[in-house]
Amino acid sequence: MRVAVIGTGSAGRALADGFRRIGHDVVTGTRDPEETRGRPEWAEHGDSLVALADAGTGADLVVNATGGMVSLDALAEVDLVGKVLLDVANPLDFSAGFPPTLSVKDTDSLAEQIQRAHPEARVVKALNTVNGAVMVDPARLGAETTIFVAGDDEGARGVVRTLLGELGWSDVVEFTSLDAARGLEMWLPLWVRLMGTLGTADFNLKLIR
Amino acid sequence: MRVAVIGTGSAGRALADGFRRIGHDVVTGTRDPEETRGRPEWAEHGDSLVALADAGTGADLVVNATGGMVSLDALAEVDLVGKVLLDVANPLDFSAGFPPTLSVKDTDSLAEQIQRAHPEARVVKALNTVNGAVMVDPARLGAETTIFVAGDDEGARGVVRTLLGELGWSDVVEFTSLDAARGLEMWLPLWVRLMGTLGTADFNLKLIR
Repeated sequence: MRVAVIGTGSAGRALADGFRRIGHDVVTGTRDPEETRGRPEWAEHGDSLVALADAGTGADLVVNATGGMVSLDALAEVDLVGKVLLDVANPLDFSAGFPPTLSVKDTDSLAEQIQRAHPEARVVKALNTVNGAVMVDPARLGAETTIFVAGDDEGARGVVRTLLGELGWSDVVEFTSLDAARGLEMWLPLWVRLMGTLGTADFNLKLIR
Repeated sequence: MRVAVIGTGSAGRALADGFRRIGHDVVTGTRDPEETRGRPEWAEHGDSLVALADAGTGADLVVNATGGMVSLDALAEVDLVGKVLLDVANPLDFSAGFPPTLSVKDTDSLAEQIQRAHPEARVVKALNTVNGAVMVDPARLGAETTIFVAGDDEGARGVVRTLLGELGWSDVVEFTSLDAARGLEMWLPLWVRLMGTLGTADFNLKLIR
């Protein structure tokens, strides 16, 4: 599968590496590929960097791994027509410091904002509840944990479900409506406080039922 | 310990029964004890019902188990001076139907509103992340799960921690600041959607770290 990851931060890099490891053809979309290519963390995969306007071309899956506050601006430049858009971002607003607040919540979500801006994309929210390292390597936690999927489009959820299985996720809880992303994004205020209290971002929840 | 539970709903009843089972002396505060006494679910414990104005008298611990939208009004009638106030409520607003939204969130919380209204109370947020049956019987889930405690007052957190241990909670994550209640209350939008998708309220998360 050809995967276009949008975003060059730690989550985007972890996802690109993870998708490569399980055999996918990965490009990373960024505003200025030439500038990004000069950064030390891109020494190995500089060739995979493409401009946002080219990132969607030929992609079977586009992944939004940008910061939630800039996602809409970045995705505005990407061709998402007919594509599955996996949104792993969170609308974290650090403008008042730590812990961040959410720039959208409760009656709306970043995932729904993206869907409204791109009505012909098939948006699925998933993986936003864990950090980049856990997204692509759930086994690193030493016990099975739970991951969530939310989306209106059954076929798009299926594409993401298959990908999650390839990454090693075995306990997947699926919501058949994208507005469940409100709940998934509102987990973050607890997540960021847990990161502070536990002293690590390497954690996740296992749903016991 | 003398415990005053405020609220006669399912969570309040479960807590009163649970605290009795582990040997505490429990009264339940309600707006109109005479009226409540006439309800079938109070046939057995009608004698324990007291008016809100009397509920705090002699209590070592007061538990807010009212609906989050009416908590401030109900607690305004309770003497909380110097008392540990365990807040298990959530600010769920059902005025627009299901799923509910939160009437306060992100930059404030119900627990902090209660603390501001009762500066001489020692407010601790805990148990709001599970339903009443699980609050008092975590073993019913068949595996250890995690419960959270948040509060500014170390002694008050200690009282709650002891009580949680008596109820059977062994994995307790503690936040030393009451504003972590923002995170704990913002878990609810995911909780209510999980209840819908799983078809049960008998679930909880186990934190894997």
